[in-house]
Amino acid sequence: MKREIPYKTYLTENEIPTAWYNVRADMKTDHRPLLNPANMEPMALEDLKPVFCEELAKQELNTSDRFIPIPEEVREFYTMFRPSPLVRAYFLEEALGTPAEIYYKYEGGNTSGSHKLNSAIAQAYYAKEQGLKGVTTETGAGQWGTALAMACGYFDLECRVYMVRVSAEQKPDRVEIMHTYDADVTLSPSDTTEIGRKMLSDHVNPDGSLGTAISEAVEYAVQNDGYRYVLGSVLNQVVLHQSIIGLETKLAFEKLDRYPDIVIGCAGGGSNLGGLMSPFMEDRLADRTAPYFIAVEPASCPSLTRGKFAYDFCDTGQVTPLAKMYTLGHGFIPPASHAGGLRFHGMSPILSQLYHDGFLDEARSVTQQEIFEAATLFSKVEGTLPAPESAHAIKVAIDEALECKKTGEKKIIVFGLTGTGYFDMSAYRRYREGGLDDTPPSDESIATGLGELPPNAE
Amino acid sequence: MKREIPYKTYLTENEIPTAWYNVRADMKTDHRPLLNPANMEPMALEDLKPVFCEELAKQELNTSDRFIPIPEEVREFYTMFRPSPLVRAYFLEEALGTPAEIYYKYEGGNTSGSHKLNSAIAQAYYAKEQGLKGVTTETGAGQWGTALAMACGYFDLECRVYMVRVSAEQKPDRVEIMHTYDADVTLSPSDTTEIGRKMLSDHVNPDGSLGTAISEAVEYAVQNDGYRYVLGSVLNQVVLHQSIIGLETKLAFEKLDRYPDIVIGCAGGGSNLGGLMSPFMEDRLADRTAPYFIAVEPASCPSLTRGKFAYDFCDTGQVTPLAKMYTLGHGFIPPASHAGGLRFHGMSPILSQLYHDGFLDEARSVTQQEIFEAATLFSKVEGTLPAPESAHAIKVAIDEALECKKTGEKKIIVFGLTGTGYFDMSAYRRYREGGLDDTPPSDESIATGLGELPPNAE
Repeated sequence: MKREIPYKTYLTENEIPTAWYNVRADMKTDHRPLLNPANMEPMALEDLKPVFCEELAKQELNTSDRFIPIPEEVREFYTMFRPSPLVRAYFLEEALGTPAEIYYKYEGGNTSGSHKLNSAIAQAYYAKEQGLKGVTTETGAGQWGTALAMACGYFDLECRVYMVRVSAEQKPDRVEIMHTYDADVTLSPSDTTEIGRKMLSDHVNPDGSLGTAISEAVEYAVQNDGYRYVLGSVLNQVVLHQSIIGLETKLAFEKLDRYPDIVIGCAGGGSNLGGLMSPFMEDRLADRTAPYFIAVEPASCPSLTRGKFAYDFCDTGQVTPLAKMYTLGHGFIPPASHAGGLRFHGMSPILSQLYHDGFLDEARSVTQQEIFEAATLFSKVEGTLPAPESAHAIKVAIDEALECKKTGEKKIIVFGLTGTGYFDMSAYRRYREGGLDDTPPSDESIATGLGELPPNAE
Repeated sequence: MKREIPYKTYLTENEIPTAWYNVRADMKTDHRPLLNPANMEPMALEDLKPVFCEELAKQELNTSDRFIPIPEEVREFYTMFRPSPLVRAYFLEEALGTPAEIYYKYEGGNTSGSHKLNSAIAQAYYAKEQGLKGVTTETGAGQWGTALAMACGYFDLECRVYMVRVSAEQKPDRVEIMHTYDADVTLSPSDTTEIGRKMLSDHVNPDGSLGTAISEAVEYAVQNDGYRYVLGSVLNQVVLHQSIIGLETKLAFEKLDRYPDIVIGCAGGGSNLGGLMSPFMEDRLADRTAPYFIAVEPASCPSLTRGKFAYDFCDTGQVTPLAKMYTLGHGFIPPASHAGGLRFHGMSPILSQLYHDGFLDEARSVTQQEIFEAATLFSKVEGTLPAPESAHAIKVAIDEALECKKTGEKKIIVFGLTGTGYFDMSAYRRYREGGLDDTPPSDESIATGLGELPPNAE
């Protein structure tokens, strides 16, 4: 065994990037501002400050600085789990018999189990710097909540997580990890907020939803001194922090004397794909050779493929600012049968704009059956059991590699392997036992969601 | 941040050792053979072949070859998760304020979550090479069963795992991962074997024990064509395979221009500590400068600290060969309140002999309260949530580092971080809620166990 390219390529600690890349500064577009839900006016820094940490609010609005320095304390924390490996999927290539080279950037090798830690530690740092008491957030599948709990534990910051009730009940181990890092986990809907109490008394959705949990977290932060709200996806600041994934990937490819032809990422809120593709999108925006970009979303929550590019709330309770994004409507809730994450009704405004403008080349939706088939194959041949979210990207990477097998092309494919599936084994069991239901949302339910979009915002 | 030594030191893929180190070849001792339970006679290769794969039986008996080549297929599989990082625990050092340098070799970064995969893939390989249909084994906490399932899945070999019933019920996710890799998981005691049926009808211990699961796995292998029994710890062959841990550790230290003063490992069956310390023990056995070796075991299952160096069965059902080892008696079952692994009544014959002869310097037993305190601190500062087993080593590493703080010594401490605690969160919860019971085994229960040792074997 003598390989030209090793199975895993690690950068050195000193090669961890010193600045995040802000793709918005290179996008030649009219960046659409967040709108204030109270009056539908663009939100300025002053308007965002009651909700977000000040430095994060600045990053949210920043459309001019191409690079933003990574604070030294954050970079030091990064050394615990970064640089993450860029893996050449030799075993998958062999199993498929493809002439393509398949790579994945593996972000699941930290205790939180996913890429979310990249942004969590940055957000906790800025909250601490601002002298805050704590932060609030929501979590669905639990990846973000766990990451934020770790980050807050590190900086000794209070962490108040509103976790979708049904997820918490299905994943007690996730909850316990957050407790180990001293986070305060509240099941949503809860009686700690007005919107939560309303949901509970209305008996509309006692299992909870991500949208409701967001509303609760925002309400708590706004109404309690010394707290701010933080979010693990969708926002510009999160895509900014996640650019570390793409920066490391690009540098590793340079070292290997390679450049990818196709970049693939799963897309729920968009943070992972946004982070992975940003530094390659830089090439596209500068009219240099660039990869073909594919976003993969679940058929059950298809914001890019069946949603609308419009202003919408980020939450069910309509307390958050409105963002211009691909959305299924803030009232949209994916079918309960959907096992994986990626359940958010909207898509990152950055990804949405890039998709709208044709820079993000393609969006595909895939079924649960397809992603668990891909995940199981991948587990066996590559030895890493992926999160269902990540398996969306695996499925399309396999499809593209099989296409190369037909055409004989030696394309270089890279995808984001965002996390481990350790906490999703009940979903794997449902797949194995044939219990997954793949009925996509009906045209009526999509139309209903889109019918509830705020009318006066374009 | 400019560090002389990086947080993580990775060897390159080509530096993965090409041979395992067989410490027995350097031990100047009268190696005590395994004894046949039928007649108490030493077991030769022919006697072992009905139970073990032939090549593994040869390795079990090998006391002359210092190095045994790692098959190319095994080495290729190793590249998926090896070399594992040698981590400089900067954050722990800072939290403790110690002048010591603390390092750990992290073996939890693969899907099975522990070091067990190092031996599982070797054992599956030899079984496949021999043309067997499948292998049988037992698993308690599930680390070994998961590792073997992955290894067998890779070589397309049947994998029949007898899992301690109470563990399986507490860890459905572990079971599901084994299922994902197509293993056949049978809860023990089961009605698939004579010993299992007897245990069930006697209603002695319906929850199961590791000793019973071993008996069942051995019985099934012996009575069914094309199957052999494999084991994840205790045996010489396993310590041999696990020497990869120590070989990589030693090489990494050489690259860092360091040599450890203290080597610490948790010890249940002894495979992890045996593997980590073997290449350093080579120095001790050759009268060169060598580290001080510490084995750490749970107070609830204290084979080295309260057991006896004697011949004993490896299982409750008395179907396995007898080994000369430190043992609490094959009937010993640790208190049900014991949460972590390391529940085996005996200790690796290699470690036992080295301890008996004074080369393994010290054995310490620690309580559950102590290990979970250490684990929680470690999780927070180092960002990796350890398995309770691994936390035994962390606890003693912390103690040694604090001792250095008193004396001002800059000792170099290395310990084995054998696995992640993802599947042990219910134990963490019991700790957090104050529900751990640390009552050690009474003198009477120890005496009872030791009283049942086979009388005629010395």
